[in-house]
Amino acid sequence: MIKVVILGGGNVAQHLYTALSSQKLVDIVQCYNRKGITLHPDQNNNKIVTDLNKIVLANIYILAVSDDAIEEISTNLPFQNRFVVHTSGSVPMSTIKDTNRKGVFYPLQTFSKNTTVDFTKIPFCIEAESKDDKQLLKKLASFLSPKVYEISSEQRNILHVSAVFVNNFTNYLFSVGNDICDEHEIPFEILHPLIQETAQKIQKIIPDKAQTGPAIRNDLETIQRHLNILTDNTQKEIYQTLTRSIQSKYGKKL
Amino acid sequence: MIKVVILGGGNVAQHLYTALSSQKLVDIVQCYNRKGITLHPDQNNNKIVTDLNKIVLANIYILAVSDDAIEEISTNLPFQNRFVVHTSGSVPMSTIKDTNRKGVFYPLQTFSKNTTVDFTKIPFCIEAESKDDKQLLKKLASFLSPKVYEISSEQRNILHVSAVFVNNFTNYLFSVGNDICDEHEIPFEILHPLIQETAQKIQKIIPDKAQTGPAIRNDLETIQRHLNILTDNTQKEIYQTLTRSIQSKYGKKL
Repeated sequence: MIKVVILGGGNVAQHLYTALSSQKLVDIVQCYNRKGITLHPDQNNNKIVTDLNKIVLANIYILAVSDDAIEEISTNLPFQNRFVVHTSGSVPMSTIKDTNRKGVFYPLQTFSKNTTVDFTKIPFCIEAESKDDKQLLKKLASFLSPKVYEISSEQRNILHVSAVFVNNFTNYLFSVGNDICDEHEIPFEILHPLIQETAQKIQKIIPDKAQTGPAIRNDLETIQRHLNILTDNTQKEIYQTLTRSIQSKYGKKL
Repeated sequence: MIKVVILGGGNVAQHLYTALSSQKLVDIVQCYNRKGITLHPDQNNNKIVTDLNKIVLANIYILAVSDDAIEEISTNLPFQNRFVVHTSGSVPMSTIKDTNRKGVFYPLQTFSKNTTVDFTKIPFCIEAESKDDKQLLKKLASFLSPKVYEISSEQRNILHVSAVFVNNFTNYLFSVGNDICDEHEIPFEILHPLIQETAQKIQKIIPDKAQTGPAIRNDLETIQRHLNILTDNTQKEIYQTLTRSIQSKYGKKL
């Protein structure tokens, strides 16, 4: 049985509580957050504390708090040499105060409130200082998901940059597509299946092999026609920057 | 019963043949392509012709050929006043020779060889000169998919530009994410679930509402850290261009 304390009251804390509380081999012995928020309707109120000094003994303390709060809360923990992990994608493990054993338990996904999360599809990136702690964290993660990766703080940083490209920037391109459609009274939903297919394709073949379009074909006529259609200067600039990048990347290989 | 002739021997012709041949109310009376290619293992060879002069009477002639070939083949058709449609996303309807009635039957999706296509999920963009022809095309499309849209040649052009943003450019951002992971020996598959979630999210909420990340938060510290991590100048330029665009788009609204 792995005894766990969850610290935090936000989305990640709530989703982790829901997922871990149904595990036979996990015992969530306590939850801490400043406001005494219940993490789940079925949660026993007696197990929620608002005072760090009342925290009981556990095998793992999960700091599911905002990036800014990790250092402070870990500093204020009134115990030593216990195993404390955070759940952040961009904060180094070393941010956790040295008085305890450190680790990271990072589920790589965007969490929204009030949506059920299927943890079996979410990769867990774990990190710890000692072999034993790593083993324990791996075990805990493997209860929730078959996808568990040992990722160093430096690699997590890199993953975070990559995620900006494949998630934040990609969503922004969707918003540009949406704006262009709106401007010409075309329902954006026509493009939904293409967007799904684009995302699914790279699960089977690497993105380099899936690249299509006028830029990689060096179809200058179509590129010029598209630039003439675009009325917004920002859209034009993005079109030109990405077209040039695609041409320079694949032009060498053609 | 709608009598159809399919002209062309490529992916689109093959996928359309497979989908239409199973329809009770469709009769593919003939197929034409220069090389006499069979479009399906079960196809009756007698119904394939390599000579345009042998083409029989039908309600719809589908030019499922490359963009460049549409004008030439439509010019060489040895009949008049019949209903001829092409399947291209970027060629105007007017490219079809005036001697016949014109139309467009454009399934908006990327087709690959040897993969089964679920047409029920593919939007059809249709266009025709007369009301009756439009009605006929709508009927044919509705046999295959519940998503049928009347889209003018001008709108199809706009859709094509939008598709470059949401498909071609998005895939390129995936390739950048892949490159960054490769460089640091991180398996890119860790990001697959995030990519799926990004694509699925915008089916429920518009991209503007789904935007997250350091750019929209105006988190300058993280942006600078990411720029320091990126070693490739093209990657840096894309990061900067897209970050600036996100800030200028949503900065006004904040």
